[in-house]
Amino acid sequence: MSSRVTKSYGLIKLLMKPGDGSLRFPQFLRCFQADGFSAFRSCNTVRNRFMSSSMDPMAGEEAKGGVALLPAVEDKYGGVMTEMSRPMDPSAFSALLRSSLSNWTLQGKKGVWIKLPRQLISLAETAVKEGFWFHHAEKNYLMLVYWIPKQDHTLPSNASHRVGIAAFVINHNKEVLVVQEKTGRFKGQGIWKFPTGVVNEGEYIHDGSVREVKEETGVDTEFVQVLAFRQTHKAFFEKSDLFFVCMLKPLSLEINAQESEIEAAQWMPWEEYKKQPFVQNHELLRYMTDICSAKTNGDYEGFTPLPVSAPDLHGNLYFNNRDLSSHQ
Amino acid sequence: MSSRVTKSYGLIKLLMKPGDGSLRFPQFLRCFQADGFSAFRSCNTVRNRFMSSSMDPMAGEEAKGGVALLPAVEDKYGGVMTEMSRPMDPSAFSALLRSSLSNWTLQGKKGVWIKLPRQLISLAETAVKEGFWFHHAEKNYLMLVYWIPKQDHTLPSNASHRVGIAAFVINHNKEVLVVQEKTGRFKGQGIWKFPTGVVNEGEYIHDGSVREVKEETGVDTEFVQVLAFRQTHKAFFEKSDLFFVCMLKPLSLEINAQESEIEAAQWMPWEEYKKQPFVQNHELLRYMTDICSAKTNGDYEGFTPLPVSAPDLHGNLYFNNRDLSSHQ
Repeated sequence: MSSRVTKSYGLIKLLMKPGDGSLRFPQFLRCFQADGFSAFRSCNTVRNRFMSSSMDPMAGEEAKGGVALLPAVEDKYGGVMTEMSRPMDPSAFSALLRSSLSNWTLQGKKGVWIKLPRQLISLAETAVKEGFWFHHAEKNYLMLVYWIPKQDHTLPSNASHRVGIAAFVINHNKEVLVVQEKTGRFKGQGIWKFPTGVVNEGEYIHDGSVREVKEETGVDTEFVQVLAFRQTHKAFFEKSDLFFVCMLKPLSLEINAQESEIEAAQWMPWEEYKKQPFVQNHELLRYMTDICSAKTNGDYEGFTPLPVSAPDLHGNLYFNNRDLSSHQ
Repeated sequence: MSSRVTKSYGLIKLLMKPGDGSLRFPQFLRCFQADGFSAFRSCNTVRNRFMSSSMDPMAGEEAKGGVALLPAVEDKYGGVMTEMSRPMDPSAFSALLRSSLSNWTLQGKKGVWIKLPRQLISLAETAVKEGFWFHHAEKNYLMLVYWIPKQDHTLPSNASHRVGIAAFVINHNKEVLVVQEKTGRFKGQGIWKFPTGVVNEGEYIHDGSVREVKEETGVDTEFVQVLAFRQTHKAFFEKSDLFFVCMLKPLSLEINAQESEIEAAQWMPWEEYKKQPFVQNHELLRYMTDICSAKTNGDYEGFTPLPVSAPDLHGNLYFNNRDLSSHQ
């Protein structure tokens, strides 16, 4: 190792915070933020040249000419994404971000995504100052985005809908599976209703409905059809709601009500369910019961799921299978 | 005005930043963060007692005993929401947040929401340190949330799905309205496809499909039915996609292709559309064309929307109206 290397390595050791292996950038190194890229290039060249991967480098990748850049992966729409994973001084992040943006602009990149884990939220202000806005957030991260081209952006929209289900489960005795909830707006009102729930991210509607029935009542079921769906807006904050009424066939009859959410669960004669004033006075529920009655009598066809594939894409297509089959 | 009031008011004037009317909390006042609520109470009492609303107070509301609290509105689920609107020193925010959380805990509140506009993102770190996590984010704000009770939270899920549409518009000559896109994965491949788009937040599926056709092609349409829908996962990041195939009836024939997104648009014989190798080789598109053919021949029934209302809720129910009508 040459003496220059040894000296530089000593500087790196000085910068390393005890404990987390990340770097602190003392004031004298923050010069690069004011001085622009040339100063930045030189001090980051030191950092990059002598921090091997086993030293757990904080962030930078070296581009041509030794400029330190944020590590990024390209997406298939001409954009890049960088996922921050280690603590960093905001001014060091600012410099890295600026040099990276310059580089990506030269490369003709379009969208720039920064994924910030919750514990690194202190870096968000820096990105906002550079013009980034928020795309979406989940419990443990915030996704920021920036659009380099002068034209309007073609970035994907944020998710706008929550997806829920109501499960119509009827047995051979024309009894329907109903619950009373411990929480929510029907709590304590003695109302017997269909099991309902929210479909998880990454879960199909038919799988979600089978899961919810099992969780709330202990009853095993097989999915039959989506009988109808309802779209409402401003269900929570500005978000919308798609609520699928699903028919399921019971595979077991024994009820084990979920302790945390369900006050009571039972098989109730369908005619008795329909007579509840709560059902009679509720326009949507009247339609739902009419549809369910028609289905029970074999007079109604909803949408059946079918797995379909395309390059890069697997999903389920829900459609009127009876009509399509009789057409073919 | 008593001399005590005059003196306190002078302190407030000292703290006020020129320009934005917000307060800066100098170091000597940051004591309250370390010293806990008693110190906090006293300095905020000063601030609250003498800042009238016409002085544009930064945040605090006064609770019993003079403790400054974040202004908050109650939600119908036993929670509170505070929407930050003015810059604040993070340590001042930290103190306000702590006293507010104590107060809300005493009041038996459950969920606590903090809406941070993009320009106040520097306050997010403080909330995260107090145990808040992210619920969702839109372009210009981040929504943080905290759950006070010891039991598992019952907070609403974040939106999980994006909602898209494909529009099947066929005229009396059995010609279908098709486009070639300037961007996206079919760009430059000479593929003629149905107009597609994303349903906006707060927009019904049927309204969104009519709007997208008008925007992309200039053709006026009337919504007929949802013929089928497809659910896929990880459509962008971890989010899912619900994609509704809609049939629309043309009300005009003249085409004005949208310059920014559409390379070309035309009425194409339905038989010619179906023969495209792109359609033949794509499982989902084959099903879609079969369904559309069946519909064109009067052999297929999809879901028709009907506005439905419930207390606190307006929406559209989509269902098989032919089957329900013939049942009734």
